Parts: sequence; structure tokens; C-alpha cells
Amino acid sequence: MNTFGHLFKITTCGESYGGAVAVIIDGCPPGLAISREEIQKQCDRRRPGQSALTTPRQERDQVHILSGIFDGHTMGTPILLLAHNEDMRPGDYEILKNVYRPSHADFSYQQKYGRRDFRGSGRASARETWARVAAGAIAQKYLQEHLHIEVMSYVEQVGTLCTTIDPKSVLASSIESNSVRCPDPLIVPAMQNLIECVKQEGDSIGGIIQGVLRNVPVGLGAPVFDKLSADLGKAMLGINAVKGFEIGSGFEGATLRGSEHNDSFIIRDGNISCATNHAGGILGGISTGEDILFRVAFKPVSTIAKEQQTLTLEKEKVALSVQGRHDPCVLPRAVPIVDAMAALVLMDHYLLHKAQNL
Amino acid sequence: MNTFGHLFKITTCGESYGGAVAVIIDGCPPGLAISREEIQKQCDRRRPGQSALTTPRQERDQVHILSGIFDGHTMGTPILLLAHNEDMRPGDYEILKNVYRPSHADFSYQQKYGRRDFRGSGRASARETWARVAAGAIAQKYLQEHLHIEVMSYVEQVGTLCTTIDPKSVLASSIESNSVRCPDPLIVPAMQNLIECVKQEGDSIGGIIQGVLRNVPVGLGAPVFDKLSADLGKAMLGINAVKGFEIGSGFEGATLRGSEHNDSFIIRDGNISCATNHAGGILGGISTGEDILFRVAFKPVSTIAKEQQTLTLEKEKVALSVQGRHDPCVLPRAVPIVDAMAALVLMDHYLLHKAQNL
Amino acid sequence: MNTFGHLFKITTCGESYGGAVAVIIDGCPPGLAISREEIQKQCDRRRPGQSALTTPRQERDQVHILSGIFDGHTMGTPILLLAHNEDMRPGDYEILKNVYRPSHADFSYQQKYGRRDFRGSGRASARETWARVAAGAIAQKYLQEHLHIEVMSYVEQVGTLCTTIDPKSVLASSIESNSVRCPDPLIVPAMQNLIECVKQEGDSIGGIIQGVLRNVPVGLGAPVFDKLSADLGKAMLGINAVKGFEIGSGFEGATLRGSEHNDSFIIRDGNISCATNHAGGILGGISTGEDILFRVAFKPVSTIAKEQQTLTLEKEKVALSVQGRHDPCVLPRAVPIVDAMAALVLMDHYLLHKAQNL
Amino acid sequence: MNTFGHLFKITTCGESYGGAVAVIIDGCPPGLAISREEIQKQCDRRRPGQSALTTPRQERDQVHILSGIFDGHTMGTPILLLAHNEDMRPGDYEILKNVYRPSHADFSYQQKYGRRDFRGSGRASARETWARVAAGAIAQKYLQEHLHIEVMSYVEQVGTLCTTIDPKSVLASSIESNSVRCPDPLIVPAMQNLIECVKQEGDSIGGIIQGVLRNVPVGLGAPVFDKLSADLGKAMLGINAVKGFEIGSGFEGATLRGSEHNDSFIIRDGNISCATNHAGGILGGISTGEDILFRVAFKPVSTIAKEQQTLTLEKEKVALSVQGRHDPCVLPRAVPIVDAMAALVLMDHYLLHKAQNL
Repeated sequence: MNTFGHLFKITTCGESYGGAVAVIIDGCPPGLAISREEIQKQCDRRRPGQSALTTPRQERDQVHILSGIFDGHTMGTPILLLAHNEDMRPGDYEILKNVYRPSHADFSYQQKYGRRDFRGSGRASARETWARVAAGAIAQKYLQEHLHIEVMSYVEQVGTLCTTIDPKSVLASSIESNSVRCPDPLIVPAMQNLIECVKQEGDSIGGIIQGVLRNVPVGLGAPVFDKLSADLGKAMLGINAVKGFEIGSGFEGATLRGSEHNDSFIIRDGNISCATNHAGGILGGISTGEDILFRVAFKPVSTIAKEQQTLTLEKEKVALSVQGRHDPCVLPRAVPIVDAMAALVLMDHYLLHKAQNL
Repeated sequence: MNTFGHLFKITTCGESYGGAVAVIIDGCPPGLAISREEIQKQCDRRRPGQSALTTPRQERDQVHILSGIFDGHTMGTPILLLAHNEDMRPGDYEILKNVYRPSHADFSYQQKYGRRDFRGSGRASARETWARVAAGAIAQKYLQEHLHIEVMSYVEQVGTLCTTIDPKSVLASSIESNSVRCPDPLIVPAMQNLIECVKQEGDSIGGIIQGVLRNVPVGLGAPVFDKLSADLGKAMLGINAVKGFEIGSGFEGATLRGSEHNDSFIIRDGNISCATNHAGGILGGISTGEDILFRVAFKPVSTIAKEQQTLTLEKEKVALSVQGRHDPCVLPRAVPIVDAMAALVLMDHYLLHKAQNL
Repeated sequence: MNTFGHLFKITTCGESYGGAVAVIIDGCPPGLAISREEIQKQCDRRRPGQSALTTPRQERDQVHILSGIFDGHTMGTPILLLAHNEDMRPGDYEILKNVYRPSHADFSYQQKYGRRDFRGSGRASARETWARVAAGAIAQKYLQEHLHIEVMSYVEQVGTLCTTIDPKSVLASSIESNSVRCPDPLIVPAMQNLIECVKQEGDSIGGIIQGVLRNVPVGLGAPVFDKLSADLGKAMLGINAVKGFEIGSGFEGATLRGSEHNDSFIIRDGNISCATNHAGGILGGISTGEDILFRVAFKPVSTIAKEQQTLTLEKEKVALSVQGRHDPCVLPRAVPIVDAMAALVLMDHYLLHKAQNL
Repeated sequence: MNTFGHLFKITTCGESYGGAVAVIIDGCPPGLAISREEIQKQCDRRRPGQSALTTPRQERDQVHILSGIFDGHTMGTPILLLAHNEDMRPGDYEILKNVYRPSHADFSYQQKYGRRDFRGSGRASARETWARVAAGAIAQKYLQEHLHIEVMSYVEQVGTLCTTIDPKSVLASSIESNSVRCPDPLIVPAMQNLIECVKQEGDSIGGIIQGVLRNVPVGLGAPVFDKLSADLGKAMLGINAVKGFEIGSGFEGATLRGSEHNDSFIIRDGNISCATNHAGGILGGISTGEDILFRVAFKPVSTIAKEQQTLTLEKEKVALSVQGRHDPCVLPRAVPIVDAMAALVLMDHYLLHKAQNL
């Protein structure tokens, strides 16, 4: 329900207007050196208000480490990370108490639970993703230190504006060099312009994030239900606003013939490798050692300033316009969330592989 | 690992050349009337050799019910369904003992486990999906009887041939009316022709399956990691050859603005409903009562008769051509697998919802 | 690892000397009325320093509700309960940094994890049980409100002093009437005297807690591994210092014949009931509606003031005496922990039963 | 529900009168050499009819390996072991169709599920334990080969007849030297005599099994809920007829003082060891490297030939006498079940330890 993973297991909690958002990370091996600053750094990448392109909400989201880390190292005991909720202006949300925002979880929550925390969307708030990013920072550190795995993702498309840059060549530094988190300097200005334009219109826009996982050792994943690709897919489809997931050739691959799609095995630097990578680094659910490549489609955020027709809880028609704080494009801030979820999946599968096959 | 689901839980086993494929279904409520024939019927839809469009392998796959059902009803105890392996001609596979088929799990299995059952792909064989279809038949029966949920899927695209039929209007009978399992009579002949052509060339072709879940009650799913969409995605991405999954607007939705994408709430027949269904029947991870619509992309099958260059386990180059039994297009037989997995996801989420919210 | 339960699931964290102890409760049905005071009340029963019989450590352990409860009711979202650590005098524990206390987890932790938080026993500290009691309070409230289940336990034996009072007749109020939490006024003074005597000697003493669960509906539990008795046993054996668990006739039952031990079915008030209750309210792992009766054996606490011979981490012999704060008898404070764990087991099995059988 | 374990996970199925009993073992590492005969050998120790002391039911229980083992080795894929049901004389059980046997699960099953397989007790039948023993044989082989762990248990007490032999000195061969599976030749004849006497009276008798686990490496287990002792306790309390479980000093330990109970750390053969073993080889839930010692109390079997008063499903009084096939003392046949469950717990905790701490 609110737990992700089996051996490297995170359990998150927190509504946007309760006391805090928090996560317990259970199963982290002991002895990993990790500082508060390393976790904070990832959280800052997700922070609202970090640039002109995002929601103007201001949340410092300072990480508190309340258990599991002693003397700068993990102890093998559960780690509690917590950020207090700030910038809570309940008045802002009074307007939402009695109305169902179009394409928002207000309706399904109310029906499922019979009640909901209408202030700031409660548990459906993107604020919940803070916990994922904080936990993911620990997984990323482990993967990097112990396995030299590089986890990264970037904005490939905003609306219909799309970079054609080759994922193979992308550097982490080029992703962080601009507020869109797209590594292609030729298209970034157009993307920034589009997002600002959409923002002024009180509207929102969707887009696509490309994920790249490098140096993943061969053998991670499981053959049947828990294919590495299936778990990455679930991880990404569990992020708010995600409507699609592709691995390797994805939907494009459906149009090809086997003789075109098959990646020939070749010798590269003395090792078995593949001439092409339509597979996206995973065969039969198990990593091959090639780069893992996936794409994640985000719909535009549903809460917009532009006026929309909707219904109240009493089924009356009403015009709705949510002023002031909407997020015109969630993509730049979603990049660290995609990174975090990918790292959590890899970490979990690595520990499983270690238990049974190493 | 080989278990899917939490409350309606299936555990599968079986290599294509061991003694049997089987599944234990744990958590099925007692008192469901179910016959061997109802299960067999779904298995027959998945059976190799059922039409000229599939692999010529002949597998009767007769269902044996070995526990959990007594006097025509489930007892609340675990149900064992089993099909013995037949048509095993080990000689056929001797050629594969020492070679890595391109884009096949041979390589990743060998690396992960240090050994593999090279006869018929072992656990990576599509034969494993028999167990899913058999188990899914029980879930489908329950959903239909107790909740009047209609689970269906159909072939929407083969290669680049694509029907534009509206999923809303599709009938189960029209899907079963032809060997492609596409409900659009105008495009079926072209699809059949394409598959036969590909078959004669010793090649394979990919495609897309559209899923439609009707009458799903509002409230199924969970807000965070276990969104109904995320679990459907994992279920589909866990099927062999699947490279992509979309819910509702999917990748197309990434190009839209919020004001275009949002589904307005309206009153229909006195109930709250949506004017459009870009969401695909799920908001915030929870079903809304609208049709659940999703799409699944299958790459072409990797084992082909056409000659390919590859490597042996000893890293020597070799030309490979797998004669006689390859499957030119897995899509028609994958339809019941998609149905089964969707039913298993719904059943599991229904029981979870029943435990906590009903 | 640090999670207990499947549908009503708690995940705990916190060392005694980190920032806090905390618990996330996932799966609590929405709509349960619960106040901070109701939770605090149970925590106060477990609090150190509550009487002259326990450790003099002072911990207020104020409950903070940080998520999942809004407007006095559970929302169906995860509930975070947290107590900050106070009364931390690291100097007290410097003596333990380099020594293995006899019969304490210092040794096994150091071997397993390669490191440990030596301040206050880290995760092996009884402080961790705060989280169980806080979570259990919510389960107890639900069981009481929705199912009228009465969960109680009491100190039956301290050292060799044992009450022979019949569990059937015990009232909750009589348990709380004295500092030992034994409902038998005839033996309480002797028990108090024994504990005080042991305390003055710088020693500790073990004992037995009797659990009584009334009005448990028939049908909770599962037939095979997850018998209600097995899950109660695991819950109790997971409490620090517990060395034994009995259900119903327990070890005494091993000496009987079937014709003596079998509980005859009879009609009582028009319903099927049992003449005797050797079964302890559970048959074949499933509750029968009779009182569930179990006993839990606690060894004496290992940390004592009396001087003991032991070894340092460098294998040198050393005399150890832990002054000032040891707990002579953990039994009175363990009563609310036993209550909490029993409530958590019942709650989890109730939700499972609801999912599949109601 | 019908699954035990997390990383070495078994799922069992089968009623005594359905087609078969079976188990899927998921998570066994690849490359373990195991033969059908090794599994059969353990199953034969559990087999009814193996001596004059047990039920006269004849069940060959031949093991069929249907997946997961190829070329004499495990493959890392799920292993299906199955035994067909034989010796089914439904007529024998017609008498039980409409009656609740005293202290049997007939009543709780009927109430929980609304139906039951009355033939041979259905899922409550001890026949289900075949699956545990078969799966346990694989775990035992792994523990022995890879970790040199010795798993054994023996009958310590029948009724009030009790051996005082020291568990430390017991050899596996002396356990198997007689039909009681008690290693003390001085008391075996009396035990045999008692069981035969009870059998002739149409009655049954309980007893106690002592478990001994040698060479368990230090570090297995988890600190909080999943203590090694708690998981052993759950495993044992999940066996039919078990009413009590003790680790180390057990209930006796509750009468001692800390200064008596604490096991002093000493140097033995250059390593840290303990002077005594009241802990039973586990401190803080984690193995210490000392022998793990535990005791399991079995009540007498409820199905007896001696006439008893009971009720029908329609609440009518009736006299019941189950002729011919009852088991006077389940203890000798329970020894391999205790072994199997202990091996499964160790195997699961070893893999978990490997994942996170090695």
C-alpha cells in the first residue's frame, strides 16, 4: 500500500497539510557512509519554487534524520527521514473543500475512503514524492559507491518539443545546467519559453522523461512477474501524472520485424555485448549489462488556474479556477523522482540477486 | 519472484521441458462455482497451434485441478492447476545448447544462474503463461459473477496495421470471431495476410493489444505506489515481449495542455461521470467507474527461422536459424494472457478494497 | 524486518539514542475516531519510571500524530506516530562502548552488522516497544468499537510467585489497580516485595504474563502456517526477553490423553460452545469464539547492577556493573506491550478474514 | 496464507482427499545438487504406517519433481514437488460429514468458509505436512552442504515419560535407531509401551519434541519482529497440535534472577563463547553461534476411537467413535516436520542475512 520494495523497502507517509512527510527505509546494508547534505541535495532538486518554471510554493523541506544513521554511517537498522510541512495556508484550499477538481483524485478518494483531507490534496499531493526522493538518495549513494552504477534521467519532451539527443552521450552535468533539466542546449530555450507561456495562460503542459541507467551489472531482475522492466514500469507508473512507460524500443518496437528488432550479440572489448540496444538493457526480465533505457510519459498537471466547469460534492455545476500556485510543468521537478524510483528498483533487485545468486 | 498478487495470489512454476507447468492460487474466496471446462476454455484461447497464424507446436494443455475445488466450488483453500508437458522433442533444442539466441533470455539467464534449461527456453518460455491464463480464468469468473466486471482485450495493431475502432463499442464476440482477435472486420484480412507473409519469410512481427475493463466499481486501487494503473502496468510489462504500457491518453497525453486533457465531471444518468476519458478510468491510482482503457506494446518474437549472426557460449561467431516451430506473431495468443493479468490485478485490488474500505 | 502485519501493517524505527522512536501504521480503515489522548494513555502504561518497581529512567514519550488522522478520524492513509528521545545521557553508556554485556544483544549485533549504536542498546533497546504500544492503541480502539473485542493481559507470575486466579473472571480494572498489574490482591504485596528486594540487590527477575482475548468472532486465522496461534506466538516471541509461549493447555497439555484434552461441543445459550477450553479458543488455527488464552514467559532482564564477569570487544576479561537505571522486573511494563501485539494480530487477521470470507 | 518464508519461500496446497498434496519452493539458489531420493528419504520419516506406533493408514507418498531441477541440480527457478493422494476410502469419512469432532478444526472451518471437505479433514489434515517435509529436505541439504549446519530434533517426552538426556550429546543416528525417535535407550521401551497401551484404548497421547540446531553461524535473525526465535516459534506453532514453544530456558527461565540466567561470555578455543546457554543460542533475536535449543509441546491428537459426546451440524447431540485409523501418538512422525520447519526458517534467514550483511 504505502510500501515499495522487498529487501530495500521504503514506507512513506504524510499528507501535504498534516505535520510532516516522512519515510522509513528498511533493509539498507550497514556501513554505508551518508550525510544529511547528500540527501538534502537530491531533495532540493525536487523542491517547489526552485525556478521560475515551477510552482511558486515555497517549501524548504529540510531533511531530518531521526534513526538508523550513527556516526555518519548506516547501521543496518531502519532509517527515518522526515520533513516538516511548512507554507500551509489552509485558507487557500477552502475553495476545494466542496468541489471535485477535473482529472484530480478528489473524486476517487472521496468515493473510496468516504472522507479526504481536502487541504492541499492530502495524500494525493505531489508532496508525497519528497519521501521517495529522500529515500532514493540513499539508494543512489549505495549503487554509486558499491557498484559504480550511474542513475540519471532528463526531460526529453515538453508538449511537442522534443530533443533528439542520444541518451548514450548525456552527462549528468548537462542535465543540471538549466532549469528544464534537458541536456540539449539547442532546445532548452524553446522549452523554457513554452512553459512560461503556458504558465501565463494559467494552464499546464505534459512531457516525457528519458531514463538512463549505466553500469548495471548483468543478472539483476527476475524472469516472470518481477522482471526488472516490470518493476521499473510499476515504479514509474506509481508517480503522479504518469500515463505511459516504455523500455528500449517501446511502442515503436511493435512495428518492427524480429530480424530488425533483434540485437545481435557481438564481442566488444573481449566481452559479449550487443550491436544494437532495442532491448533497452533487459532480456527476459534480467539486466544484460547494456545501458537500461526507458521513457516515462507525464500528462499535464490537472490543477490549473484557467477556469474549468466541474461539479460540487452535491452534484451542482460550478466554475473553478485555482489561483496562484499551480505548477505549469511538473517535468523538471519530476526528474529527481524518476531517478529515485529507478535507484530504489535497482537497489532492491541487487539485494535479491545477492541473496540468491552471488 | 514467481508470485503475483497479495490477497488473490498466484505462484507459478514449470519449465517448458520439465514435467509440468502449474499454478497455486491462494486467497480465492470460498463458494465460487467454477468448472474445469471454464478454465480449459481460457487456456484453449492461449494454446499454440490453434490457428494457421501461430506456432505449429501442438500442446493440448489439459487442465488438472488437484486441490482447492470440491463439489464444483472453491473451498477457500489453495487451488492447484496443472498441465503436463507434452510434445517434447529434446532433439529440436540440441542446437540451442551452446548458443545465445539474439534478443533472447538465454544470455541473461546463463549469466544470472550459471546454468539454464536450454530445452525450450526453460522458465523464459512463453509456456509459463499457461499458468497465468488458468489462474486468470478463476479471477475472471469471480469478477463477472460477483461484480459484473467485463474484462476484455483485443489486437489493435500488427506491425503498422492499426484499427481505429472505438474500444467503447467492442464486443467480446467480435474479438473471438477471427484468428487475429481483432474486432475490426475491415482490417483483419490485411493483418492475417501480413502475419502469413512474415511467417513464410521465417520472420516475426510485433503489435499492440488494447485492453478494456468495464463496470469496474469506483474505489479500486491505492494512492501511492500501488496505483491501479501501476499494478496493471507491472502485470503487462511482466508478459514476455512487452516493451510498453499506456493508460488512458498515454504518450499522446504528454503533448496536451491541462485544459485539453482534463476530463470534466458531468452528470450522466444522475451519477457523477466524465465527459471524456483521457484518464483511462483511473484518477490518483483509484478507479473512477469509467471504462479502464490501456494499451500494451509487444516487440516481435526473438526466435525466428531467418538466419542471424550470433555467439556461442565460448564467444565464437555462428550463424543461427531456428527451424520449424517459431511463432510469427504472438499477439492473438497474448490476448487471453492480457485478459488474465488484468483480471488478477482487479481481483487482488478488489479484495484489498473489501478488507479496508467496504 | 521492521514491519509487522500484512493488512494492518506497522513499520517501526528508532534507536534509544537517535532522534526519535516512531511507527507508520498502514492499512487502518478510514473513519475510526481516535484521539491523541487515547494513544497516550496506552503509552503511559508502558512508560519507564511510572512506579517504584521499574527503571528510574524518565521518559515522557509524548505522542505526536504527524499524518493519517484528520479531524479526529483516520483517513485510510498511513498514520505516523512519533516520540522524541529525551533523557539521553550519553556519558552513562560510555562504559558499554567496548564491552559485551552478558546475555545482551551487544555481541550478536556487533557480529551481524559490524557496528552498533552502543548508547542505550540502539535498536535492541526496549524503547523500540513504544512504537508497538502506540500502534496497538489504534488497533485496540478499532477492535473494541467495531467488534466489541476485549484485549487484556496481566502478570500471573513473578519469579516463582504465581496467582491461581481464573483468567475468565479477571477485570481490566483489577489489573490496573496496582503497580504489578496482577489482578490478585492476595499475592500482589508479595510480588511487590520480591521486586523491590531484587532491585536492592541490583538484580532482576523474570515472570509470566497471561493474555485473555474475549469476544473474538469465530473464523479469524488461517489453517496452515498463519494459524492465529502461530501469529500470536510470533508476536509475543518478538518481544524482548520472551523465552516461551503457550496457547490453551500449552506444555501441560502434552501430558494428557486425547479423551482428557478434547473439549466437548455443547449447546450454551442456543449456540455451539465448548464444555472446556484446553484449545485456548483456537482450533486448526482458527478462532472458535471461545476466550483466547495464552501465556508468555519472560526471562529476567540481562542488564543488572550486580557485578558480572564478561569480555571486551578485544576479548579481554572485565568485571561489569551497570549502575543506576536498570529495570528489576520488566513484567508490569510489558503488559501493555502484550496487549498491543495481541491487538495487532487480531486486527490483521480480521481484515484478512473480511477480504476473503465476509 | 499458504506461503511460508520470504526469500526461501514455500507455498503448499492439497487436501487429504483431493488429487494431490504439493509444494512450490521459490527462491532456492541455483546449483544445489539434490536427488529425488534425498527428498523421499525425509518424506518416508513422516509417512503414516511406518511403524506399529502410528496410524495404520498406508500412504506411499512418492515424490514427483515437476519443475526447477534439471540434470540433478536446482536451477534457481521454482521447484514443484507433488505426491498423489492414495488410500482414499471416502466411505470411511461419511460418518464425519455431519458431525463436529471435539477439538478438531471441523467446526472452525465450517464457520469460516461456510463449507469444508469433510473427507479426511480437508486442509486441516496432517497430510498437508508432507509438503513441508519435502520442501524442508531441500533446505536441509543446502544448510548441510554450504554451511555445515546440523538440524535435528527428537522426542523428549511422551505423556509424562521424559528423557533427561543432554541435547548437546545427541546424535542423529541414535534418534533414528527406534520407532519413537527418542535417543535415550533407557526410556524408549516405556514410551513404546505407553503408546501401544494408549492405542489399544482407542485414545491418544501428547508429548514434547526437543530441537537442536548446531553450527548455525552467528548473525542470523533480525532484531525486532522477525527475531530468529520468533520465526522458529511461528514455524512450530503452525504445526498441527502444537500448543507451546520454548527457546533456551523457556518457562523455567521466568523463575530465575538475571544474575543466575545471564550466560557469561568466555573464551573457548580462542573465540568468544558462552559459559552456559540459557539463551538457547539466540540473543536479541540474532544467532550467537551457540547451539540453538528449543522445545515444542504437542497436545494429543483429537481424532480418537474412544467414544465421545459431540454435536452435529444441526446442533444435535451424538456419540462419536472414529474407528480403525487413528494415530495414538503423532510425536515420532512429527520429528521430521519439526526438522523441516527449522531448516526452512534457517534457510530464509540465511538468505536475508546474505542479502544485507555479507
